[in-house]
Amino acid sequence: MKIGFDAMGGDHAPVETVKGAIESLDDFEGDIVLYGDEQKIVSELAKYKFNTDRIEVVHTTEIITNDDKPVKAIKTKSDSSMVVGLKALRKGDIDAFVSAGNTGALLAGGLFKVGRIKGINRPALCTIYPTMGKASVLVDAGANAECKPRNLIEFAYMGSIYAERVLKLTKPRVALANIGAEETKGTQLYIETHALLKEADLNFVGNVEGRDIPAGKVDVIVADGFTGNIILKLTEGVAGTLIDGIKNAIVSSTKGKIGGVLIKKNLSVFKKQIDYTEYGGAPLLGVNGLVVKAHGSSNAKAFRNAIKYAKIGVETELVDEIKMKIAKLAPVIEIEDDNSAS
Amino acid sequence: MKIGFDAMGGDHAPVETVKGAIESLDDFEGDIVLYGDEQKIVSELAKYKFNTDRIEVVHTTEIITNDDKPVKAIKTKSDSSMVVGLKALRKGDIDAFVSAGNTGALLAGGLFKVGRIKGINRPALCTIYPTMGKASVLVDAGANAECKPRNLIEFAYMGSIYAERVLKLTKPRVALANIGAEETKGTQLYIETHALLKEADLNFVGNVEGRDIPAGKVDVIVADGFTGNIILKLTEGVAGTLIDGIKNAIVSSTKGKIGGVLIKKNLSVFKKQIDYTEYGGAPLLGVNGLVVKAHGSSNAKAFRNAIKYAKIGVETELVDEIKMKIAKLAPVIEIEDDNSAS
Repeated sequence: MKIGFDAMGGDHAPVETVKGAIESLDDFEGDIVLYGDEQKIVSELAKYKFNTDRIEVVHTTEIITNDDKPVKAIKTKSDSSMVVGLKALRKGDIDAFVSAGNTGALLAGGLFKVGRIKGINRPALCTIYPTMGKASVLVDAGANAECKPRNLIEFAYMGSIYAERVLKLTKPRVALANIGAEETKGTQLYIETHALLKEADLNFVGNVEGRDIPAGKVDVIVADGFTGNIILKLTEGVAGTLIDGIKNAIVSSTKGKIGGVLIKKNLSVFKKQIDYTEYGGAPLLGVNGLVVKAHGSSNAKAFRNAIKYAKIGVETELVDEIKMKIAKLAPVIEIEDDNSAS
Repeated sequence: MKIGFDAMGGDHAPVETVKGAIESLDDFEGDIVLYGDEQKIVSELAKYKFNTDRIEVVHTTEIITNDDKPVKAIKTKSDSSMVVGLKALRKGDIDAFVSAGNTGALLAGGLFKVGRIKGINRPALCTIYPTMGKASVLVDAGANAECKPRNLIEFAYMGSIYAERVLKLTKPRVALANIGAEETKGTQLYIETHALLKEADLNFVGNVEGRDIPAGKVDVIVADGFTGNIILKLTEGVAGTLIDGIKNAIVSSTKGKIGGVLIKKNLSVFKKQIDYTEYGGAPLLGVNGLVVKAHGSSNAKAFRNAIKYAKIGVETELVDEIKMKIAKLAPVIEIEDDNSAS
């Protein structure tokens, strides 16, 4: 197995990307191909001892930054670490490609350089949503702001397959993010999608309200990319603000400070449970190859985990499984799409 | 001043409603009119010492429950505490009406029994969003799942007026909930609304991402009712799950338990900062009278605060201010609506 990795992507590249790549060698038998500025990568690699046979460096001269316009960057920066890596994935030189670079560019690159799976209308970002001690899957986390019912149905199938294969869940509970439990709740998009999901070959458990999402009562949370992105970022925001607030409250008195020292270890165990770096990557499901988006602020640990999940995706033939399922469903989805198109 | 109060509304009525009403007598000079089952209310009132001149009971024979279909309930249960209270508001017998009953019914009742302000297309629920040590306003919190740009513009104006009048903020910072900072982010609805808000007579500060909402960087968060409701409930869900998780983590060891005792006081101060019961009520802005929705699970303290905020709304002539502002803007909004209609 060969996993391609964008060594120039993310806020802490190439220091943390290279470190993460080296650490991930302990997690699997395969090799890693690093795409990026060879000189910079080699000088980072020089810090570590590792089996040099297992790390390959492919030199690229350009970098896609967060300020770049996604589609334009993918079309013009043909020697960027991201584009070269995605092309290698398409050619089959690597089995998966992981990047923490410009999200929009990676989505565009997935579409234009790797291509969609036949039958899929819109690929989606499928992210891990950490709940109490377990992981749910949120799809779409932000690739498609504007969606039709057909898209949400595809997201549901792909998310369910991801939860089954990569998270090893049996009959994942699929739910539709919504503002109430009743099937008549929400916008027309959600009402139509609910009706279609009830007929789908999925373990559909109904709507899930914002209040119940963090409790981990469902395994796959289906939403349009606008709602999904708000869910993801708001969760990070509330958790971060709350933890900061609690910390400040604790250190505001001497007694509190002593108490804080005593609970420190417990809190760090807890923090690990809800830490996104434990999961690290969001696959772009629906493209014809395993493309994984890592968080822009990823550290080495997050990269290591992103590579680990990519490895599981390759081992469990995630992309092929989606292809097979969608091929079976394609005629059904097309009909549903015609019905729901307005 | 007379504030009407649905004594039968909410999970803990009439015990907590009556208790809240009694306690709120300390907060203002006016009177409270309780609508509901006289016998039940009187037997609750008997528990307290208070100036009997200041509490009036209007006997009603029906109750709208959470299982009732909103529009049907408003139309058929004409002797319910909610309908009788709303009619009294319309007639001017009371200056505001507070209820923790069926949300959909209260929205429908606001529309049918009190009526919209001329120029307003869709009234919206404007809720307090507690951030670190201060309050933001979220509008619409769930009254209108499906919105047009025109609606969001109205929400922005009404939310800004609420923040200015009731929360006493100067030039409230108005922001559009969205999935990125750039004005081209989000769905067509959000892109069009952003462009209109830039031209509005408001202190519009741009988009606010989910990550930044809980930090309190803005004062008025504008969203369609679907997104707003998800924001509100998800925030409750994340905060609740996180606090439970931290508690469990703390008590999982003896050392942690001792630490927990030491930080208890600090945490309770912190909890107060983010406690919705401190704010208690969400006005239904855009109807021609002050209708306030209290949380279904409100306790006496939450009711007391809902009444307190209703009182401030009456004192600051919130509804008249909205009327004046919308009258000035109506022609502008109508044109915008025509442009944006698809």
